[in-house]
Amino acid sequence: MQRSETDSSVISSSRVNGTNVYNLSGVKLGSIDSLMIDKFSGQVRYAVMELGGFLGMGADLYPLPWNSLKYDTEYGGYLVFVTKEQLNNAPRYDSNTRPDYTDEYGRRVYKHYGVPYL
Amino acid sequence: MQRSETDSSVISSSRVNGTNVYNLSGVKLGSIDSLMIDKFSGQVRYAVMELGGFLGMGADLYPLPWNSLKYDTEYGGYLVFVTKEQLNNAPRYDSNTRPDYTDEYGRRVYKHYGVPYL
Repeated sequence: MQRSETDSSVISSSRVNGTNVYNLSGVKLGSIDSLMIDKFSGQVRYAVMELGGFLGMGADLYPLPWNSLKYDTEYGGYLVFVTKEQLNNAPRYDSNTRPDYTDEYGRRVYKHYGVPYL
Repeated sequence: MQRSETDSSVISSSRVNGTNVYNLSGVKLGSIDSLMIDKFSGQVRYAVMELGGFLGMGADLYPLPWNSLKYDTEYGGYLVFVTKEQLNNAPRYDSNTRPDYTDEYGRRVYKHYGVPYL
């Protein structure tokens, strides 16, 4: 269900999931697997990027701080400022070993991408 | 992928979607179809409840203010304080006619459920 989302300031979670993620050179890194939402406030804290694997099998999952992503209409996807080295060392997990999203883990993720902890 | 979510204060959008919604008498009203997220702040503003239809065909979609929903571990779903009359008159649409989620529309939805506009 791909409906127009340009009519308002809200976007559907069903439209975010599957959207491509690019670095600032326009190289596709992966796509959004899901969003991680604060249970109490309802604030989106992470977009989880899927990278590698085949049809989701064997893919690695990279939590990205929500505020590190900028939607770009030209690419039709999210841009994230990350170097190859940063991505190589980035916090990641496979789909069977989801980490505890503790405060400590969150701070590590945000720090890795150089954005203020939300 | 139903992973444990009790380990932290965040929940995956993929886990929210499909979760049942009950009224305070424990009667199932519908299930969450998707979340509507503020593009700029990343704040979840509505949970869109699917009601009626068959396998999503012909179902009506009811935007519910995020802060009108309380997760209940006993039911394993969200509780919403809404009477039958309120639901009969509630803002809704079918999947082919998504409304503009304007500020005015948002205020109407929030007012209908008697919660402060977020």
